[in-house]
Amino acid sequence: MKLTTIEIRKLLKQHPGWSVENGKLHRDYRFADFSQAIGFLTMAALKIEVLDHHPEWANVYNRVSVNCVTHDAGGITMKDFALAAVLDQVAKRCA
Amino acid sequence: MKLTTIEIRKLLKQHPGWSVENGKLHRDYRFADFSQAIGFLTMAALKIEVLDHHPEWANVYNRVSVNCVTHDAGGITMKDFALAAVLDQVAKRCA
Amino acid sequence: MKLTTIEIRKLLKQHPGWSVENGKLHRDYRFADFSQAIGFLTMAALKIEVLDHHPEWANVYNRVSVNCVTHDAGGITMKDFALAAVLDQVAKRCA
Amino acid sequence: MKLTTIEIRKLLKQHPGWSVENGKLHRDYRFADFSQAIGFLTMAALKIEVLDHHPEWANVYNRVSVNCVTHDAGGITMKDFALAAVLDQVAKRCA
Repeated sequence: MKLTTIEIRKLLKQHPGWSVENGKLHRDYRFADFSQAIGFLTMAALKIEVLDHHPEWANVYNRVSVNCVTHDAGGITMKDFALAAVLDQVAKRCA
Repeated sequence: MKLTTIEIRKLLKQHPGWSVENGKLHRDYRFADFSQAIGFLTMAALKIEVLDHHPEWANVYNRVSVNCVTHDAGGITMKDFALAAVLDQVAKRCA
Repeated sequence: MKLTTIEIRKLLKQHPGWSVENGKLHRDYRFADFSQAIGFLTMAALKIEVLDHHPEWANVYNRVSVNCVTHDAGGITMKDFALAAVLDQVAKRCA
Repeated sequence: MKLTTIEIRKLLKQHPGWSVENGKLHRDYRFADFSQAIGFLTMAALKIEVLDHHPEWANVYNRVSVNCVTHDAGGITMKDFALAAVLDQVAKRCA
């Protein structure tokens, strides 16, 4: 179920680094180099496949930017915040 | 060295599926599922690391969209077409 | 539950390329090059994470050898044959 | 060129965690889980492709064991120690 603006604002406080951009939960990661960025994508992909909720993400060299949104719900849901938490956990390991 | 519009037009004929969008060499790939898309990114990443010329690429589920441009040259160069050829070769293997 | 020798022999007929070595379901794959072998490992890893049943696998350059066994059951089970089928499906895509 | 036993013994002191097993430079890594082990393989694979010197490595769940040897030289060479150093550097990032 789509979260309200107030709910999202509260949840963002528990997810530092994340913001809302164009109606999607957004974060930019920066890694040491290309190999580490690709390693992050791979590690995260295994967790994502289990969650069965996929991000929109882009990579250029050592940077990865992520957008999370639940298309079926027409907005940001708890699934997007769960995905955000998993990505942060994986990214921390690659730092 | 930045290619001219005429040079790019000629080269595009040898690279079906590719076009110029916002001054960048562009292609969209579609795979069977998320695991295959991530497998493509990984396989391609090994080739890219050797080329030492990195694409701007994005993934959502089974789709990967790629933009190639040479920032140092301020436009599309032969390096971008070489990268395009490598990505096509890898994608063909994952089809 | 651990399969009997007779059950395993029947199932092997439906899984060409696989054999039993040292009490484990075994297969060797050969790919075009290192990048394709690593791409296979990555693609397969996403499927494996969902199955939650992990192979013993080894890589040298373009080769990947796999052993499947269910340690809890003390032998080969249906889970190992399910894993074998998934690996074959992924490998076919990389051929 | 194949290193002598004395040379290898000296170099091993600078590469803690590595030993010689069956004439190959050997190390076992242990990661948090399967996704991290696969992430390590992927990150390392990009570096390995550039080195163009490939390890013999095996994975089971969160463990990766590595053997490095230079077949052309019939033994352990400086290339194997270079590979060992790169793998350690990548593994440290995943720890």
